[in-house]
Amino acid sequence: MSEERRLPWPRLHEFCAGVFRHVGVPAEDARLAAEVLSAADRRGIDSHGVARLRTYYDLLVNGRINPRPRVRVVRETASTATVDGDGGLGLVVGPRANQIAIDKAGGVGTGWVSVANTNHFGIAGYYVIKALERDLIGWAMTNSTRGVAPLWGAERMLGTNPIAIGFPAGEEPPVVLDMATCTVAYGKIEIALRKGEAIPLGWAIDAEGRPTTDPRAMIDGGALLPLGSDRDHGGHKGYGLALAVDVLSAVLSGANWGPFTPPFALRQAMPPRSVGKGIGHFFGAMRIDAFRDPADFKAQMDDFVRTLRATRPAPGTAGPLIPGDPERQAEKERDVSGIPVLPPVLDDLRDIAQRTGVQLE
Amino acid sequence: MSEERRLPWPRLHEFCAGVFRHVGVPAEDARLAAEVLSAADRRGIDSHGVARLRTYYDLLVNGRINPRPRVRVVRETASTATVDGDGGLGLVVGPRANQIAIDKAGGVGTGWVSVANTNHFGIAGYYVIKALERDLIGWAMTNSTRGVAPLWGAERMLGTNPIAIGFPAGEEPPVVLDMATCTVAYGKIEIALRKGEAIPLGWAIDAEGRPTTDPRAMIDGGALLPLGSDRDHGGHKGYGLALAVDVLSAVLSGANWGPFTPPFALRQAMPPRSVGKGIGHFFGAMRIDAFRDPADFKAQMDDFVRTLRATRPAPGTAGPLIPGDPERQAEKERDVSGIPVLPPVLDDLRDIAQRTGVQLE
Repeated sequence: MSEERRLPWPRLHEFCAGVFRHVGVPAEDARLAAEVLSAADRRGIDSHGVARLRTYYDLLVNGRINPRPRVRVVRETASTATVDGDGGLGLVVGPRANQIAIDKAGGVGTGWVSVANTNHFGIAGYYVIKALERDLIGWAMTNSTRGVAPLWGAERMLGTNPIAIGFPAGEEPPVVLDMATCTVAYGKIEIALRKGEAIPLGWAIDAEGRPTTDPRAMIDGGALLPLGSDRDHGGHKGYGLALAVDVLSAVLSGANWGPFTPPFALRQAMPPRSVGKGIGHFFGAMRIDAFRDPADFKAQMDDFVRTLRATRPAPGTAGPLIPGDPERQAEKERDVSGIPVLPPVLDDLRDIAQRTGVQLE
Repeated sequence: MSEERRLPWPRLHEFCAGVFRHVGVPAEDARLAAEVLSAADRRGIDSHGVARLRTYYDLLVNGRINPRPRVRVVRETASTATVDGDGGLGLVVGPRANQIAIDKAGGVGTGWVSVANTNHFGIAGYYVIKALERDLIGWAMTNSTRGVAPLWGAERMLGTNPIAIGFPAGEEPPVVLDMATCTVAYGKIEIALRKGEAIPLGWAIDAEGRPTTDPRAMIDGGALLPLGSDRDHGGHKGYGLALAVDVLSAVLSGANWGPFTPPFALRQAMPPRSVGKGIGHFFGAMRIDAFRDPADFKAQMDDFVRTLRATRPAPGTAGPLIPGDPERQAEKERDVSGIPVLPPVLDDLRDIAQRTGVQLE
């Protein structure tokens, strides 16, 4: 196995774009898809960047993702659209649908787009940042393959169904919340397993639906728990949020929902039945000036952010962060020192480089 | 002190409306305000119903709430509006602003309304149900007096900032999520104190910012914790959601936010500075047919709800509920057997009856 390496993000971006082009994705779309993956790597969300190139590649090569989708609006009003992604890369369908939300906001103040027939769209935060670049409040959600149990359930029924929302500020950086609606990411269970460590109670249940501290018990037929973990700590709230994301992304657009979302993996079994097309996303964009003078809004946002940073710190901490701080910090650091690529990921990338002839290093 | 009594909700409704009229609220508004309070009592959310009449009454009598507000739209686009509540009852300003969101949805598919210069609006679920009655997806949020610490903070900086969202179904009842963004309601801390019981770790911190199981330590200068409780269990997510609710409700409308929201109580000190007018709400309404054929949407909602109900139950449970189930159950039961009014609340109501001459029993 390779050693961990640091690669500059533009190098990885170029590689990903080359690989997408190699499997039939048009150049402009390939660049866009690579940009979404790079956003994850730069912002420190390693699970959603080049680490997933292998899966996108496999699904494209095996015809499970359409490299040249005809993305189209199937229904719309002045403030809404429903988009059919034609089975294309979520990394391409997502940005196009998000742009429709942004355009609608330009017209009537807000835009809301639900998307079916798509697949994994990378980090939700990417879409919100695109809205922020246009000085809009941005929203992004997606459903995903089942991995989370509803509160009081003993099996996987919902995805990690993230919610992202971003607010522009003035002198302060924007507030960017990007959160899964479960307690922790699946990746944290895998890390604990690899290290031979126990996981905290409240992260997962085993195959019988009992709380577990054994990462293996979650992986072998168990499930993640919704944000809040148990009834006493508000697990019904995380479950409710995951359900809301699923309805907005999939029931509203005509995609598969809940336990019927297709897996983002070549070898995983398909769900027992299909209730729609692909998975679903949901995007929103809101013009600040549709509500308030933007300069006033931004001055208040700056004040709010500074007020929160000035909170008296809890013992043993440096005080509260602002949503988006850790990702911004990672981006700053990684834009200088490169993206750390873990050995198994590097092996995957080298294998793809060999198969496609696209140069990696 | 009185004994606990059960009173039929129409009796309480009539009493509340009479009290509101007595202190100068126009008859139509008084009826509306009483309806919002009754919705809380009927749905089992005792903390937000007649138990709060005393506070509304005190604030009206002392001129801190305007009984005859001139609620007006101060800015709008085809899909948005910003409303100034003129310091009126949230129970009156809220329904009017919500109706504007509903009307906008009729025009361009969705409507989004941010409200300043208002106060406590009752249960967020009420507004969502009004949208559901028109076959719309409804959203409601509000900020509130500080009681919650941001993750890694040692003091109260944010309100319990609830989020409600409702989705129509077909044969199944609608899905109605109505949740505070903190781990538990303040009322649960008070109940534990009264019973002399410890509270679970993860609910609160003491005045030094340390996790505590002592309800008194939370009440005496401590704070509630955001949904997720600590870093390991996603406390940054609940904090981020509370912040988002605050921005949508208050920064967007020009209301007070974070630690500067005025208290909903006569004797509590006002915040050290004012950054806007009153507190803020946020409402949304989305037409189903703006996205998808409503019959198809509802058939899928029914399927989704039944699929979730059929989840294999966790040991010791009857399986997952659907958001809105407990409230619907309470409403069914209480519409027959009456609203249980606790002794201290009954004392308050009898005192108000005596002062106003409005008949209670």
